[in-house]
Amino acid sequence: MKTFASDNYSGVHPEVMAALQRANEGHAGSYGNDPFTASATKKFKEHFGNDAEVFFVYNGTAANVLGLSALTHSFHSVICAEGAHINVDESTAPEKFLGCKLVHVPSPNGKITPEQINQKLSRQGDQHHPQVKVVSISQATEYGTVYDPGEIKMISKAAKDAQLYFHMDGSRLSNAAVTLKKSFRELTRDAGVDILSFGGTKNGMMFGEAIVIFDPALAADFQYRRKQGMQLHSKMRFISVQFEALLTNSLWERNATHTNSLAKKLAAKLRALPGISITQEVNANGVFAIFPRPIIAPLQNDYPFYVWNESIHEVRLMCSWDTTEDEVEQFVNRVRELVGKSDQ
Amino acid sequence: MKTFASDNYSGVHPEVMAALQRANEGHAGSYGNDPFTASATKKFKEHFGNDAEVFFVYNGTAANVLGLSALTHSFHSVICAEGAHINVDESTAPEKFLGCKLVHVPSPNGKITPEQINQKLSRQGDQHHPQVKVVSISQATEYGTVYDPGEIKMISKAAKDAQLYFHMDGSRLSNAAVTLKKSFRELTRDAGVDILSFGGTKNGMMFGEAIVIFDPALAADFQYRRKQGMQLHSKMRFISVQFEALLTNSLWERNATHTNSLAKKLAAKLRALPGISITQEVNANGVFAIFPRPIIAPLQNDYPFYVWNESIHEVRLMCSWDTTEDEVEQFVNRVRELVGKSDQ
Amino acid sequence: MKTFASDNYSGVHPEVMAALQRANEGHAGSYGNDPFTASATKKFKEHFGNDAEVFFVYNGTAANVLGLSALTHSFHSVICAEGAHINVDESTAPEKFLGCKLVHVPSPNGKITPEQINQKLSRQGDQHHPQVKVVSISQATEYGTVYDPGEIKMISKAAKDAQLYFHMDGSRLSNAAVTLKKSFRELTRDAGVDILSFGGTKNGMMFGEAIVIFDPALAADFQYRRKQGMQLHSKMRFISVQFEALLTNSLWERNATHTNSLAKKLAAKLRALPGISITQEVNANGVFAIFPRPIIAPLQNDYPFYVWNESIHEVRLMCSWDTTEDEVEQFVNRVRELVGKSDQ
Amino acid sequence: MKTFASDNYSGVHPEVMAALQRANEGHAGSYGNDPFTASATKKFKEHFGNDAEVFFVYNGTAANVLGLSALTHSFHSVICAEGAHINVDESTAPEKFLGCKLVHVPSPNGKITPEQINQKLSRQGDQHHPQVKVVSISQATEYGTVYDPGEIKMISKAAKDAQLYFHMDGSRLSNAAVTLKKSFRELTRDAGVDILSFGGTKNGMMFGEAIVIFDPALAADFQYRRKQGMQLHSKMRFISVQFEALLTNSLWERNATHTNSLAKKLAAKLRALPGISITQEVNANGVFAIFPRPIIAPLQNDYPFYVWNESIHEVRLMCSWDTTEDEVEQFVNRVRELVGKSDQ
Repeated sequence: MKTFASDNYSGVHPEVMAALQRANEGHAGSYGNDPFTASATKKFKEHFGNDAEVFFVYNGTAANVLGLSALTHSFHSVICAEGAHINVDESTAPEKFLGCKLVHVPSPNGKITPEQINQKLSRQGDQHHPQVKVVSISQATEYGTVYDPGEIKMISKAAKDAQLYFHMDGSRLSNAAVTLKKSFRELTRDAGVDILSFGGTKNGMMFGEAIVIFDPALAADFQYRRKQGMQLHSKMRFISVQFEALLTNSLWERNATHTNSLAKKLAAKLRALPGISITQEVNANGVFAIFPRPIIAPLQNDYPFYVWNESIHEVRLMCSWDTTEDEVEQFVNRVRELVGKSDQ
Repeated sequence: MKTFASDNYSGVHPEVMAALQRANEGHAGSYGNDPFTASATKKFKEHFGNDAEVFFVYNGTAANVLGLSALTHSFHSVICAEGAHINVDESTAPEKFLGCKLVHVPSPNGKITPEQINQKLSRQGDQHHPQVKVVSISQATEYGTVYDPGEIKMISKAAKDAQLYFHMDGSRLSNAAVTLKKSFRELTRDAGVDILSFGGTKNGMMFGEAIVIFDPALAADFQYRRKQGMQLHSKMRFISVQFEALLTNSLWERNATHTNSLAKKLAAKLRALPGISITQEVNANGVFAIFPRPIIAPLQNDYPFYVWNESIHEVRLMCSWDTTEDEVEQFVNRVRELVGKSDQ
Repeated sequence: MKTFASDNYSGVHPEVMAALQRANEGHAGSYGNDPFTASATKKFKEHFGNDAEVFFVYNGTAANVLGLSALTHSFHSVICAEGAHINVDESTAPEKFLGCKLVHVPSPNGKITPEQINQKLSRQGDQHHPQVKVVSISQATEYGTVYDPGEIKMISKAAKDAQLYFHMDGSRLSNAAVTLKKSFRELTRDAGVDILSFGGTKNGMMFGEAIVIFDPALAADFQYRRKQGMQLHSKMRFISVQFEALLTNSLWERNATHTNSLAKKLAAKLRALPGISITQEVNANGVFAIFPRPIIAPLQNDYPFYVWNESIHEVRLMCSWDTTEDEVEQFVNRVRELVGKSDQ
Repeated sequence: MKTFASDNYSGVHPEVMAALQRANEGHAGSYGNDPFTASATKKFKEHFGNDAEVFFVYNGTAANVLGLSALTHSFHSVICAEGAHINVDESTAPEKFLGCKLVHVPSPNGKITPEQINQKLSRQGDQHHPQVKVVSISQATEYGTVYDPGEIKMISKAAKDAQLYFHMDGSRLSNAAVTLKKSFRELTRDAGVDILSFGGTKNGMMFGEAIVIFDPALAADFQYRRKQGMQLHSKMRFISVQFEALLTNSLWERNATHTNSLAKKLAAKLRALPGISITQEVNANGVFAIFPRPIIAPLQNDYPFYVWNESIHEVRLMCSWDTTEDEVEQFVNRVRELVGKSDQ
């Protein structure tokens, strides 16, 4: 049964699965020295520019942490939103691996502003204090909202003005690109991003994320960081070929369009129900909603999902590439039924 | 074309691929909260005992480093063979993640002895010196040799006598088990091993290794180490189901038996050629041989492989689960041809 | 000229200087194997109990970080006040050395409450999130306020209820003890503190802080942490004898009584001036005051001090063991003069 | 009583003690913002060049580790002699703080050769292997031997040829300079050294070592490394003024000349005794000698010293700035007496 718990509850898209089968022929060089990696790398360069460098790793935590490692020394700090994945959902991987402090700013919608960045700069040059070196944003955010290109450029300007690097956690960049009708490049490199985590797993892959580095100088030693970070896959072709599939025939776009659209529908239908309010703009594949408290437990029994904010009984509902309209409909029906009961 | 470069040049075994297909049905709980992980875990417990705890990670470097992290504080050191994978082939992942020093001992055949352990203990209790806390061995070793159960027990005794933990890098444990005709358990837990890295990728999987912990107290916090170590897979079922396949109908054993047997044949045929000598006992799937220098480059042109020791022109030849007898035969024929030429 | 910038602008108390001279006789065992260390350790045990273990280090950053290292694994987090020294004034030493995240709570007066601790516990047991393991408080706080014994016990109870350790940064513990008329032991061990940083440098020493560990099990391996932390002094007698002096004839108490009393006088006199308000209770040797903005720069010209909060022109004024009543008087006179001018 | 255990058994030279007294006047800016630090820095620049940057830290472990941190990323390795202090006497501080591997080479006399460096470079560019980035030598070595300027330049050339940095642990550089009749600069900067640990404690100071950086680019962020490394002293003037004393009226030279000369005398007298052989050239303040085993324990009873190599009963005898000729004479007499007895 399908759930709305997380986009990582979904399986592997059939086109990705077919690609994995296709790659499983005979021997191939290990650690990336294979034609599938060459081909997937070429696809990335088509999207991001020929001198962009791409490194495949296993998961999003690693993509973020290793990407940040190329931008920091251990006496640095990284500005991010309070609810950023790197701040609250990656254990202490960033602190352990980077040595850096994460400096978080409040963000009810998951986005940060140039003003918030500027407010954290008052102790630059003071040896006693962690030195801000990077701004990291999530696009789409953990709240299903997106930064439009203008907002990204404003953050980039604030970062560059303060001699900071600009990092983007793009585990759901495809969803943002579809919503904003912009290319990957427009939302990243052209908007001033230095290093990008490009998501694969949540958008239909079995495993694998990509780190895209726009300044070759930052990429020069990156292979060592990946290996040291325990993220160099021996049978690399099996990550690469998945990315190749994702970037072929716009599979990334079809999947993201589908999940975005379902999320919008889900939100619209829920909004129409009494006692339910939608708390965030629905710009990606997640819906944040306040539910009547009594319906949450029985609903979770049928459809696992996460309560995001216990105190206001806000829940998070995620649509996946394999979620269907029917399933959304059935879910909403069940909500309606429970709301009706709890109303009596 | 098949090569003898590394067992990680091979693809994914058809039974593993079928299992991946089978697991790709609908939604499943993420991060291991799924039936495939439960089932694979059960298989491990059948092999290693009901209170053994197993944690799946992405690769062997992580299996080794995270396993060691449960046994050490950062002021400790780890004794290992000079050529151990953790010592020379995992970048500085052990030092970076553990903070520990690796104390290596010379080992022409990849094995270490109780005497070598004892010689490294003279500064225990001296606050200026790294404190030895773990002995780590590879089974089979990086040289294709194996420790017999008696040798493992002797090392275990030396370790326990010195209050050290005992870690085993078992990325090719299946090969050793087949050669020694012993169960996994006899070669690990029953012989005194505390934590085991159990290999999957080299024995026919697409990705994934397992960390098996025999003392539940050492496993208590391990989930946090895995997540912090950037090794927690969201769509965990796709690692788990591969291990389930490997441990079903003895696939692990069939594969290891096949590769071991090919390696023995390869060694026997090479040994018969003039100017070639076999430098290590062939107890797993690797053959180490001294080749006439002039044949190496042309041979590598057809069949990639690694020169292990440049100064004595020693090469390493690895057989994989998908290598065939015919391919071994063809390779030997090519060697024979080149040897003949170089002889003239 | 004396300033009010920091208590570390002061020199070394004559009795400490005399002790250093006294210790400078002939040879002594290094690394703590000397009679001065034995004697200083005995003094600590008189204060804290015979089974308390004490380790001397160079500075307060190290005392805090190494103390915390004995209480944490790298996947843990530490709750502290937003303005805690470990959070904002020790670069990224805690993150780098511990790997842990510091989880700070807002604290206008430098103190934290049991409720704030409880609010940070909602993700205990969730492998994705840093696991809270320690509560760290400063006594006296960075704002010159103190926790009374009842407050410390309440925090201790909240910590123990949640199976957390309790750490105290006591770089100004002497000041708190004098204000509260309590023994060191009553404010630390007897109130549930597990590990204490005991300040020396700010209370008249040349260099050196002490880490006091109340549970011998936590101290068992601590010597290795100190050495690894680059904090083991070879000529240890010269730290030890300073602590011996500080704990002899109540020098610690005389110094703290003096500085506390000066701070109270300074606050009283400033409060009487127009346009000046005192923003924190004056319970230690620091005074926090809002000054008319125009007087700050000319005043700093004569008497260096720190602006604590630029936006509200709040300043911090610290009294040292060697500050005199006359100097306080002269300073206030200068403030009065400037206030008068700025008023016109 | 004087011992021959270590030069850190000695106390503080009277001229250093007087300097400490002198600095103990009124207030001074903290963290190095004081006239004593300015003055000591100037002295260093006179020795090492005006653009050399100097940072004072507490001890030698920190000087070495922090110096190396400016030269490495965590995926690097550092070549050093097997018996180098960083390799065997600094716990795991280097591994923990740097993340790097120390790659040691055998060295019976404490020195390493260009050939040994070259032999460790075969895996440069291989992502699986720690990448050599620094060569570190000790001058004088831990065995009391010295590199002459030609040898240093040869090592420097090997390092530069391989794009490696060159680090020198100069905790006893003064002893080497006296022996070689060369300036500090000739033995370091002019010979190609990039970063130097300059020893203070063993040559008559109470505490404090200096890190001297010859390339300003390497020094740019160093203040943050020092603070993060828990090595920034608040009352910095008390380290600085000691270095000022050491570099004034050639105190460093007088002390080193004295200890070198005593060591030579001690060696000469011991060599004349039956059954005793000197195992290393005596070029600094240490004497390594093989003693008849039966005399060691009774001699240690009177005069503590270290057995360096238990298996061949080799001992280490260190002369300090405060050791006298009479004490050497008495010690030798006692040795002679014990040798006589053991001979009977």
